[in-house]
Amino acid sequence: MSRTILVLPGDGIGPEIIAEAVKLIDALKSRHGLDVELDEATIGGAGYDAAGHPLPEETLTKARAADAVLLGAVGGPQYDALPRELRPERGLLGIRKELGLFANLRPALLYPELAEASTLKREVVEGLDIMIVRELTGGIYFGEPRGVRTREDGEREGFNTLVYREHEVERIARVAFETAMKRGKRLCSVDKANVLEVSELWREVVERVGRDYPGVELSHMYVDNAAMQLIRAPKQFDVMVTTNLFGDILSDAASMLTGSIGMLPSASLNADGQGMYEPIHGSAPDIAGQGMANSLATILSVSMLLRHSLREAALADRVDAAVGTVLRQGLRTADLARGGEAVVGTAAMGDAVVAA
Amino acid sequence: MSRTILVLPGDGIGPEIIAEAVKLIDALKSRHGLDVELDEATIGGAGYDAAGHPLPEETLTKARAADAVLLGAVGGPQYDALPRELRPERGLLGIRKELGLFANLRPALLYPELAEASTLKREVVEGLDIMIVRELTGGIYFGEPRGVRTREDGEREGFNTLVYREHEVERIARVAFETAMKRGKRLCSVDKANVLEVSELWREVVERVGRDYPGVELSHMYVDNAAMQLIRAPKQFDVMVTTNLFGDILSDAASMLTGSIGMLPSASLNADGQGMYEPIHGSAPDIAGQGMANSLATILSVSMLLRHSLREAALADRVDAAVGTVLRQGLRTADLARGGEAVVGTAAMGDAVVAA
Ligand SMILES: CC(C)[C@H](C(=O)O)[C@@H](O)C(=O)O
Ligand SMILES: CC(C)[C@H](C(=O)O)[C@@H](O)C(=O)O
Repeated sequence: MSRTILVLPGDGIGPEIIAEAVKLIDALKSRHGLDVELDEATIGGAGYDAAGHPLPEETLTKARAADAVLLGAVGGPQYDALPRELRPERGLLGIRKELGLFANLRPALLYPELAEASTLKREVVEGLDIMIVRELTGGIYFGEPRGVRTREDGEREGFNTLVYREHEVERIARVAFETAMKRGKRLCSVDKANVLEVSELWREVVERVGRDYPGVELSHMYVDNAAMQLIRAPKQFDVMVTTNLFGDILSDAASMLTGSIGMLPSASLNADGQGMYEPIHGSAPDIAGQGMANSLATILSVSMLLRHSLREAALADRVDAAVGTVLRQGLRTADLARGGEAVVGTAAMGDAVVAA
Repeated sequence: MSRTILVLPGDGIGPEIIAEAVKLIDALKSRHGLDVELDEATIGGAGYDAAGHPLPEETLTKARAADAVLLGAVGGPQYDALPRELRPERGLLGIRKELGLFANLRPALLYPELAEASTLKREVVEGLDIMIVRELTGGIYFGEPRGVRTREDGEREGFNTLVYREHEVERIARVAFETAMKRGKRLCSVDKANVLEVSELWREVVERVGRDYPGVELSHMYVDNAAMQLIRAPKQFDVMVTTNLFGDILSDAASMLTGSIGMLPSASLNADGQGMYEPIHGSAPDIAGQGMANSLATILSVSMLLRHSLREAALADRVDAAVGTVLRQGLRTADLARGGEAVVGTAAMGDAVVAA
C-alpha cells in the first residue's frame, strides 16, 4: 500500500513554496522510485475561504489518514477582523492538537555559506547547530480555564492557565533525550522554576527521565538566562527542551541567530511517529504571489518528512546534499542575498535543487 | 526632614557593589549637599541568614518608610535546597509586591565606548537605546490558583495562572506612554494575542490608553517576533511595554545585545513615585568576594534613584557624566575588558567615578 502525504499550502507564500516541494517530491517519485501519493486540502485562511473554517472537517479527516502532512504557512491581514475561533492560527493550533503532535523539533543551523547573513559576529555563530524540542500540544496554549470575564466589582480581567501533567512532560523529555543521544549528548531544559510551580514539576520529571539516559549530560536554565545565553554564546547549546510558550519564543530567537530563517524547516510529531512538517518562517503576506520567497525551508521540510515519517534516510540525505550544492553554486533568494549577489526566484531555486 | 534611602546589599557580589554606591552617595552628601540619610537592612539569602526569612519584617517596615530602596542582588547556590518560600528570590518578589512596584524600567543602552563588547555586529547595535517597561507585580508571577496537585487519576499536574485586570494594564501602559513622550515617542506593546485571551485584553486596554497620547506612535508585536526582531534589527525599538514574564525574558535579551550587562541599572516604581533601584545583573556567586565585579550598574542605579525618587536631576546628570568620563579614560572591569585592556577592580572603579 502506498503512503500518503497530505499537502496543505495554506496562505500567503504558502502555495508558491509548496509548489516547489511538490515538484521535488514528484522528481523523487519518477527518478528515485519514492512510493508516495500526494493529496491536498485547505487550512488557515484558505480553509476559511473554502469551507468557512480554518480547519475544515475534511482536512482533519484526510490528515488523520495520511502518513505525513506537509504545511506551507497560515495567516494574512485579510483575516484579522474575524472572530478568534475563525482566524487562521486556530487552524494551525487545531491540527497540532487533534493529531496529538506534541513534539516540535526546530533546528537552528547556520549554513556555512550563509555565515555573513547573521547579525551576530561570525565567530559567535560559525558552526551553530542547535535543536530546540518544543512541547506543542499543552501548556498555556491550551490550558483551561481561559477567557475574559467581568468581575463582581465590574472590572474585566483576562485569564489563561499554564498547566502540565507529568506524562506530558515525560514524553517530551523522552523525545529530547533521544534527540540528544543522536547528536552531541547534551540537553538543556529551560524553565522558570524560581517563579512557577509548573516549572518545578517540569524540572523534577525531566530529571527523572534523565536517569534512563546516563549518557546525556543534562542541565537546567531559567528562560530569561536562556534568552541571554542564546545571544551571548549560542554555541554552548546542543539540544534544548522546553514548554510550548518558551519554545515559541526561544526557537524564533535561535533561528534568527542563523540569519537564514528562510532556510529552516521543522517537524511536529505524535506518539505514532506521524508528523507534520513546515518551514518555520510564516506566510509573509507582504511578498506573497511575487515568486520571490525562499523555497528552501519547505524543501528541507520535505527532507525531514522523508527521514522521520517515511524512513527514507537515503533520499533525505540526497535532498540535504542538493541544498548544499545550490548554496555552493551561489544561488540566493532575495532574503539570503547580500549586496551585489544575484537573486533567483522561488521556482528557479526549486528547479536547481531538483537538478542537483 | 531629610530623605531616607534604604540600602539592601543582599547576596553574592551585592555587598561589594553596594559599598561603591554608598561611597558615591557619601561623596554627593559631603561635596554637593545632597540631603539624605542611609539605612541598611537584609534581604534574600542574607535575610534568611540573619532573620530566618528572605524578606524580614524589619526590612519591609524600613522599606515602606524609606523614600527609595537601593538593592544589590539576591541569590546563591547555598540556598538552593531551602523550601520555595524561603529562597532568596521570594524576598525580591515579596518586596516588589508589598511595595506595589508595578513599573519596572529597564534600559538597554549601548555605551559607545563599549560597542565592541556586543556579540552583534557593530552596525546592528551602534546607538542602541531601548527602554523596556515591564509590568512587575502581576501576571503569572503572582496569579492564583497555583501549585502542584494530584489528580483523581493519581497523576500530578502543575498549574499557574496568568491573569491581568484592566487597571493593571492601564497603569503600566500609562507609565510606558509617559516614558515614550520623554523619549522617541514610539511605543511597541508586546503580547501573544494570537493565542492568549489575556493578551487580547492587554492589547485592547493599551489601545484605549493610547488615545490619550496621540503624539506617541503605538504598535503591537507578538512576543516570538519581538525576540527575533531584537536580534535582527534592535534599533527599530524605542520604548517596549509588556507583561511580567515576557518583560523578564525580553529585557534580559535586550541587555545582552549591548554586551555590557554589568553596566545596566533598573528602576521599579509604585504609584506614589517610591522606587527600588538595582543593577539588572544578578548576584554572580562565582565571582563574589573577589573585588572584581563591575560596580557601574549599581552606580547608575543611584543615578536613576536620584532622578526618579529624589528629583535631583542635576546630580543624576553628574553621575552619568562621571561614568562616561571613566569609560573614556579607558577604565574597564573584567566583564568589559577585551584582550589587552587593563582591568580595574570594583573599588577602583567606584573611586574613579567619585573622583570624576
Ligand atoms: C501562529 C502561532 C499560533 C504559532 C505559535 O505560537 O505556535 C507560531 O508562532 C509558531 O511558532 O508556529
Ligand atoms: C530572580 C527572579 C525571580 C527575577 C524575575 O524573574 O523577575 C529576575 O530574573 C529579574 O528579572 O529580576
